[in-house]
Amino acid sequence: MKTRVAVNGYGTIGKRVADAVARQPDLELVGVTKTHPSYEARHAHDKGYALYLSGEGKASEFEAAGVPVAGRIEDLLTKVDVVVDAAPDKVGKENRKLYDAAGVRAIFQGGEKKDVAEASFNALGNYEACRGKRTLRVVSCNTTGLARAAAVLRSRWGVDNWEATLVRRAADPAESKKGPINGILPTFQLPSHHGPDVQTIFPDLSIQTTAVVVPTTLMHVHVNHVRLTRAPASVAEVLTTFRTTPRFHLFAPWEHVTGTPEAMEFARDRGLGLNDMMENVIWEEGVKLESRDLYFFQAIHQESIVVPENIDAIRAMFDLAPSGPASMAITDKALGLSAA
Amino acid sequence: MKTRVAVNGYGTIGKRVADAVARQPDLELVGVTKTHPSYEARHAHDKGYALYLSGEGKASEFEAAGVPVAGRIEDLLTKVDVVVDAAPDKVGKENRKLYDAAGVRAIFQGGEKKDVAEASFNALGNYEACRGKRTLRVVSCNTTGLARAAAVLRSRWGVDNWEATLVRRAADPAESKKGPINGILPTFQLPSHHGPDVQTIFPDLSIQTTAVVVPTTLMHVHVNHVRLTRAPASVAEVLTTFRTTPRFHLFAPWEHVTGTPEAMEFARDRGLGLNDMMENVIWEEGVKLESRDLYFFQAIHQESIVVPENIDAIRAMFDLAPSGPASMAITDKALGLSAA
Amino acid sequence: MKTRVAVNGYGTIGKRVADAVARQPDLELVGVTKTHPSYEARHAHDKGYALYLSGEGKASEFEAAGVPVAGRIEDLLTKVDVVVDAAPDKVGKENRKLYDAAGVRAIFQGGEKKDVAEASFNALGNYEACRGKRTLRVVSCNTTGLARAAAVLRSRWGVDNWEATLVRRAADPAESKKGPINGILPTFQLPSHHGPDVQTIFPDLSIQTTAVVVPTTLMHVHVNHVRLTRAPASVAEVLTTFRTTPRFHLFAPWEHVTGTPEAMEFARDRGLGLNDMMENVIWEEGVKLESRDLYFFQAIHQESIVVPENIDAIRAMFDLAPSGPASMAITDKALGLSAA
Amino acid sequence: MKTRVAVNGYGTIGKRVADAVARQPDLELVGVTKTHPSYEARHAHDKGYALYLSGEGKASEFEAAGVPVAGRIEDLLTKVDVVVDAAPDKVGKENRKLYDAAGVRAIFQGGEKKDVAEASFNALGNYEACRGKRTLRVVSCNTTGLARAAAVLRSRWGVDNWEATLVRRAADPAESKKGPINGILPTFQLPSHHGPDVQTIFPDLSIQTTAVVVPTTLMHVHVNHVRLTRAPASVAEVLTTFRTTPRFHLFAPWEHVTGTPEAMEFARDRGLGLNDMMENVIWEEGVKLESRDLYFFQAIHQESIVVPENIDAIRAMFDLAPSGPASMAITDKALGLSAA
Repeated sequence: MKTRVAVNGYGTIGKRVADAVARQPDLELVGVTKTHPSYEARHAHDKGYALYLSGEGKASEFEAAGVPVAGRIEDLLTKVDVVVDAAPDKVGKENRKLYDAAGVRAIFQGGEKKDVAEASFNALGNYEACRGKRTLRVVSCNTTGLARAAAVLRSRWGVDNWEATLVRRAADPAESKKGPINGILPTFQLPSHHGPDVQTIFPDLSIQTTAVVVPTTLMHVHVNHVRLTRAPASVAEVLTTFRTTPRFHLFAPWEHVTGTPEAMEFARDRGLGLNDMMENVIWEEGVKLESRDLYFFQAIHQESIVVPENIDAIRAMFDLAPSGPASMAITDKALGLSAA
Repeated sequence: MKTRVAVNGYGTIGKRVADAVARQPDLELVGVTKTHPSYEARHAHDKGYALYLSGEGKASEFEAAGVPVAGRIEDLLTKVDVVVDAAPDKVGKENRKLYDAAGVRAIFQGGEKKDVAEASFNALGNYEACRGKRTLRVVSCNTTGLARAAAVLRSRWGVDNWEATLVRRAADPAESKKGPINGILPTFQLPSHHGPDVQTIFPDLSIQTTAVVVPTTLMHVHVNHVRLTRAPASVAEVLTTFRTTPRFHLFAPWEHVTGTPEAMEFARDRGLGLNDMMENVIWEEGVKLESRDLYFFQAIHQESIVVPENIDAIRAMFDLAPSGPASMAITDKALGLSAA
Repeated sequence: MKTRVAVNGYGTIGKRVADAVARQPDLELVGVTKTHPSYEARHAHDKGYALYLSGEGKASEFEAAGVPVAGRIEDLLTKVDVVVDAAPDKVGKENRKLYDAAGVRAIFQGGEKKDVAEASFNALGNYEACRGKRTLRVVSCNTTGLARAAAVLRSRWGVDNWEATLVRRAADPAESKKGPINGILPTFQLPSHHGPDVQTIFPDLSIQTTAVVVPTTLMHVHVNHVRLTRAPASVAEVLTTFRTTPRFHLFAPWEHVTGTPEAMEFARDRGLGLNDMMENVIWEEGVKLESRDLYFFQAIHQESIVVPENIDAIRAMFDLAPSGPASMAITDKALGLSAA
Repeated sequence: MKTRVAVNGYGTIGKRVADAVARQPDLELVGVTKTHPSYEARHAHDKGYALYLSGEGKASEFEAAGVPVAGRIEDLLTKVDVVVDAAPDKVGKENRKLYDAAGVRAIFQGGEKKDVAEASFNALGNYEACRGKRTLRVVSCNTTGLARAAAVLRSRWGVDNWEATLVRRAADPAESKKGPINGILPTFQLPSHHGPDVQTIFPDLSIQTTAVVVPTTLMHVHVNHVRLTRAPASVAEVLTTFRTTPRFHLFAPWEHVTGTPEAMEFARDRGLGLNDMMENVIWEEGVKLESRDLYFFQAIHQESIVVPENIDAIRAMFDLAPSGPASMAITDKALGLSAA
């Protein structure tokens, strides 16, 4: 019997998680929620997803739009084993009361504070520690990207210290009201909250992060300088290690991927998800090794990178796979991500 | 036996046409060409498309990249009935010599001058007049958008005059070198070349176009003011007419599509092509009727709108369908576009 | 004795009007207002402008910032003959109560509805009709640009009809929160409100306007198609007419001004105001004449174009100049704008 | 007698240096050069600067544009003591032959390699070491910004190590052809060349820099993490130190400067140069101290930051001031920059 899943909030993350759940062999997507009708609600309906009302949503408004609803979130919760909360930042905490009342397990996103759940989750980072939890929080897109890379580097060479500057996209592609149009906005919190957030996965990692916001919608870019414990033999060894780890995608120089525009064009050509790039993007040219000092760029697709992690979080919670790598293999095969 | 097709130039248009050809029941994609290896060449290879060298392309360069080639464009031309030329602007004219030498029919894109081919083509506009031609030119993205709308309005109410301002995207999403980053560039040609280009389809249409270039990558937007010959009964009648014509997509106010960002997000959700919007996008709120004066906006996805037209042009050329609407129905079904 | 002026609201428009008032031989800037301290308040203070509190402004907040205030707006109003209201859109209407209570005349901006004042004002358009009024409304930046051009064309050749598409900048350069970053947003009101707003100056002008919003901060661009009553002799005649009218600036082809980026760079080089372009910008290459049909682009600097008009509105109100042209000559000389 | 100065190349940097030279009490601007007429050439002429031809420039082309020239660069060089080379990157090296032939001293910009001149120059960094040189190279905008900050931190607390990520603007405001419009482009050189370039000023400084290019035109932003040798007493001490050093401008939280858009708006309000920000911009909120670890952001106005340095380089070369601070005081007073 499949584990029954609800997705509360059918927006940027929620719609992708719903699609991903629907593709898994061991999960069943029971329904999704939406507060107001929109082109996204129309799609959910066209795909045959059962649509439920969340928040102040009104059935009449949906009916007028020709998008019928099957009930309210409370109804949906009676039919599932777990809910993936993909509500806007900070709303998840409020939603938790509903989930607790219904007695369903819950997975939250990184926009919530860490105490919203028993543990924070990253598939490569701490799958084992999250087994059997009733509530989990999948860390944010930037934190997921850092945690994945940290998992690789720590296990192979050890990490003495990590400095990362996060060059953040200011808005998602469909957000037409957010700026800036022309300018750079520093994040005055120094170091930024991303470092401590990575430490929810790796408590003993020495990491300092800083951040700026720039006028683009495609991806974040991380600029990393890592002091490793042991020196890798060569850049080639580092590249091979990333290449053979799930959820990393490397671009070779001959591919002429000069930045995030071409990286996302690759994703369009590939056609997974909503033309998504669920892997950390590494440019081979953008990796430099000086003894134990490793410099590298990575690009993070803010809309999709946490999608496979949400799936693995469900498996960890219900102990549906023998190990993290086993869960990732199932997830990635279902999503069409290439085997590492 | 299927009509055998080559695509010369596997870039923004060419890769989409190749995919579209491969999906048609009556066409066979024999091969595509590329000059240099790139992430796009990698995809062609991953999809199983036979790859041939064009221009100064060198086999050794592709082999070094792990992307083998099957020969040169001249070899490919011996195996096909027709070639779709998707080379950069103005290169098609030069390429025509190759096609003529090989005795294959050819379809060119709108970046070429009209005399590159026997006739210019638009599926809704002049399918019949293009039957049996040995060379055709599919008009450009903006012209295709205008010609489709003109076909609808002319046949239903007649058009006395058309004024259109084209607000053009400055670059495609993957073009990382082109600007401007912050500014508006008027196209000093007044009226712009788009009006005469529409007249290659409708020689007697009275149309004046103007254009500006703006810093966005998603879509063009046309601002139209059409003086019709006969007054429609209502805006609703106009909307119904567009809605029931193939290759128009209407957004209702409740869908909250405020501009091109959400329109392209809809395309991502829908997942056709490379998350493409092959239809003219009409906003229901953006249509206004004052007696015989019709105002409307339409958004045009520059990367994909000509893709179905290229397919129909092949059918017109080889007389593969009883009519334009019949060809469009086959094309659109194969591409997953909703029936009108 | 000079006419005493207050500027209520020291933001994008207000700070420019204050500077312009301070430069006029017949006007005295008595004080400006601000609600919260900011870098702009610091500048007002550094320039020696008396600063007063408006709205919910608190003296303590300013004192903590080291920017002392001289009192509240009510105090300022007792010392002036006229107040220029440069408050955010729609706040002016509310402010009018204060002005009426204080018995001072008032000039409002185009963000207010037309009934906020006795008449709408444009210096080239209707100076005479505004003499002696107690309240005036300077029309918005786009409307001012259209009204200036209409004044020229009407008086010289007559205007039978005008079609304009307004390609609007989405945010001012210092607005770091507004988008879109990548997209075009149509203004669904069709025709847009700008046409009727021009008719507050020229009630009998036949004009239809449409608008889109694009991701740039520098200037608006208007795309105009005007059917004149009488045909000009040549484009050269049209150019000469614009060139010899105050508040038009023409760029010749040899200057290599391809769009708004270079036009605003010219303004920086020139150094008037806050590197402002208070004139309508016309590109000589961007003017085309076909018998009575005139096509032309004009760029409008949204931050500054209404500044000289506010000055002239004060003169019309207090009858400080023998004519509109006489007022404009005083204003433009004081501001450093070249004589036409 | 004043030192006679030519500026070779009247573009983004050259026009600012020319204005700055013209304002100095001990320097005389003899002439500037331009290759083609443009709106910038018009301004040079309007300001009364003698204009000379450089490169392939033709007098006839300038005459046709109504902008007369006084001769060629070779003529200009016979009349001056020193030339400031503001030609495009890498052209300066070629120009040096002209300067050597004419026997004039020369100052180059940071786009040239360091061996173009006897020494690289930064006013706060190494004024003394550059006295009496016949050729100097003013380091680039980013390097100047880093060198200034390094001069402050080294002399006060010592610097053990410096990590900086440079978030670079992709184009200047008037460059309408450069992109990207939407995307982030990593600079694959790791560490970037900026670190070694700072070492042309401070050879023993331990500094690693990385860089990305983002779609904005206003300013660069540096994200710095500096390990100091001795711990400052407090952030306040650090802020005071920056505030009392010439060529640093601090924004307080109450000024509401959230990023580069408002910082450049401040520059417009202030009106120095072409609304320039010749100082390093520091946000008080964007400085954090953790024992000896100092984090801070600084914004760098790429168009103008090297302007005062070019002036000081001339003084160092001709020994026109008793010390670096003395030269800076003269320069800054003439430019209107506030005394530290």
